[in-house]
Amino acid sequence: MSLSFALLGTDGRARRGRITTAHGNVETPAFMSVGTAATVKAMTADAVRATGAEMVLANTYHLMLRPGAERIERLGGLHKFMDWPGPILTDSGGFQVMSLTELRKLSETGVTFQSHVDGSRHELTPERAMEIQRQLDTDVTMVLDECTSFPADEKTAADSMRRSMRWAARCRQAFVRRPGYGLFGINQGGVHESLRRESAEALASIGFEGYAVGGLAVGEGQETMFRVLDFTVPFLPQDRPRYLMGVGKPADLVGAVARGIDMFDCVLPTRSGRTEQAFTRFGPLTLSNARHREDPRPLDEACGCPACRKHSRAYLHHLINTREMLGPMLLTWHNLHYYQTLMAGMRAAIEQGGFADFAAAFAEDQRKGDIPPP
Amino acid sequence: MSLSFALLGTDGRARRGRITTAHGNVETPAFMSVGTAATVKAMTADAVRATGAEMVLANTYHLMLRPGAERIERLGGLHKFMDWPGPILTDSGGFQVMSLTELRKLSETGVTFQSHVDGSRHELTPERAMEIQRQLDTDVTMVLDECTSFPADEKTAADSMRRSMRWAARCRQAFVRRPGYGLFGINQGGVHESLRRESAEALASIGFEGYAVGGLAVGEGQETMFRVLDFTVPFLPQDRPRYLMGVGKPADLVGAVARGIDMFDCVLPTRSGRTEQAFTRFGPLTLSNARHREDPRPLDEACGCPACRKHSRAYLHHLINTREMLGPMLLTWHNLHYYQTLMAGMRAAIEQGGFADFAAAFAEDQRKGDIPPP
Repeated sequence: MSLSFALLGTDGRARRGRITTAHGNVETPAFMSVGTAATVKAMTADAVRATGAEMVLANTYHLMLRPGAERIERLGGLHKFMDWPGPILTDSGGFQVMSLTELRKLSETGVTFQSHVDGSRHELTPERAMEIQRQLDTDVTMVLDECTSFPADEKTAADSMRRSMRWAARCRQAFVRRPGYGLFGINQGGVHESLRRESAEALASIGFEGYAVGGLAVGEGQETMFRVLDFTVPFLPQDRPRYLMGVGKPADLVGAVARGIDMFDCVLPTRSGRTEQAFTRFGPLTLSNARHREDPRPLDEACGCPACRKHSRAYLHHLINTREMLGPMLLTWHNLHYYQTLMAGMRAAIEQGGFADFAAAFAEDQRKGDIPPP
Repeated sequence: MSLSFALLGTDGRARRGRITTAHGNVETPAFMSVGTAATVKAMTADAVRATGAEMVLANTYHLMLRPGAERIERLGGLHKFMDWPGPILTDSGGFQVMSLTELRKLSETGVTFQSHVDGSRHELTPERAMEIQRQLDTDVTMVLDECTSFPADEKTAADSMRRSMRWAARCRQAFVRRPGYGLFGINQGGVHESLRRESAEALASIGFEGYAVGGLAVGEGQETMFRVLDFTVPFLPQDRPRYLMGVGKPADLVGAVARGIDMFDCVLPTRSGRTEQAFTRFGPLTLSNARHREDPRPLDEACGCPACRKHSRAYLHHLINTREMLGPMLLTWHNLHYYQTLMAGMRAAIEQGGFADFAAAFAEDQRKGDIPPP
């Protein structure tokens, strides 16, 4: 009855799957576009759909402050509010409380904090995090966890992880089961294999509809992240989706899929779109660079997004140069399209048993770097 | 061979017409969306088309500075550059030189000025204005005129208008005729009937593919503007399109169509979209107002734009409140859609001989004001 996951095939450790939710299916490996405040920045919902996205992520912390979870519930839920009838995942708010607020106070009960918007005081407990996400009506609810600082010694990482596991059990208790909805646990334990194993076992014994790997992409670097995934992912249940939170660059996605991850979210394609960066097959490029100012070619001639089908690099450079809103709009669209195309490519490669070749070709293209100026 | 105009019908002084250009037809009365720097702010070209717009306006002054007319020419012209294969009109740059630049120097030859962007020195003459607009490859070229200050006494207005008429003759000389392209003259003369008549006669004796009324919407107020139109429009040739530059509010458009105007442009719908203002049948409203914060209704339930079909006032209020880019994007879309719907309504009313009733119903709706809060 809950949200379900079908493992359709594997290729090495890479997995091809399908998540079925109350609001539709998500083909995995999947990248979720980030819609922090109930909007994927600089994109209409129609445009997000046109990139191929099937699922979006929204941020509990931002929405509980503005416009408030109760208000969104009264307005019919987040799907209706933001015009996204498809699946939605919300984080628990814990990460933003730790990173955005001051005067926060953490206890076994939960965390109290002051809003970064207006200074108002709020409390987030495992039970309240479940209530808020139910009010938002999101398909995937994330447990409230403590975001362990990085770097953390083993004692600190262990204490933090164990509190997160106790909170995870309280979240499971408080979560109201509904057909097609699910609750995901979050694996913690820093870079310590024994802690990641202990966390995985604790979560599995509680039982969740999916399992996230948290506490990565916090400054440890790609090599360490991959090493942690190498020993952590095998601890996670085979029959549930695995979600690497907050990751990442294109090469991070390919490397994590190779290690058995099914789901991702990251602000990188949208944030980069607002800061003149475009992702392409041949690596990232900066549109404000003068080399593009009279280049009649698209960002990537193989790309099917509106920025590439309809406009030259020269036009995009002009929009950036004149600070026109259409610049960030088109670059965001391109970047999300690139990410979704990359995910679709990985899904097809896994289906055909050619993921290793795909990953090698991807890395080779990225190494080539941008095409030379005309 | 040049751009042509067919007068399809009249209803009182209101006219229903069709302009045929090298890049397609424009049904009149028409509102041109303003794409100052080769982009209608916060809109993709597809979105502009979806509002029903058939023609856009771009600004010679902004484009000659960035990215430069020569560059746009090398890149294949403005239509290709901004993904607008339909008709484009460019102003001559004179208005912006007068309003945006410092250290400008006006003489019979033309005007020299410093760029507001980087302080570089430029010269704009009637001949150079024609060359730039040919490089941009716009369907309708506007003559360079002197923007008379307001208020101006009759002597000042007369001297300024007569210089503009001499420049208009030089523009006609310099303009390179091409099939489907045309040059519009600009009537000046302030609020003085005798000067407006003199200007109209001077322009008609030179001969243009269209006639604009300039020097209005500069602070004189709607009543004065309508009075000037009342005596000026009858001086203009019947068989050419008449364009009221830089106008205006919805009620200005209706009143000017009633007085025989065929074409308009104005930044109001786009600028208002970026400053929380929405135009509706029942008058303008401010989305940041707290009365909208939990209103589940659209801006206007009769409107077919994406902001109204897909989103509540509460969501739009939230986007404005959180300064999300989608707020200006959706409000701009709505406002342009509203303007185009208003123009389509006027065209249909003229066809049916019901323009007076349409104008009365429009005024009555506007007087009602916004719907009460829920």
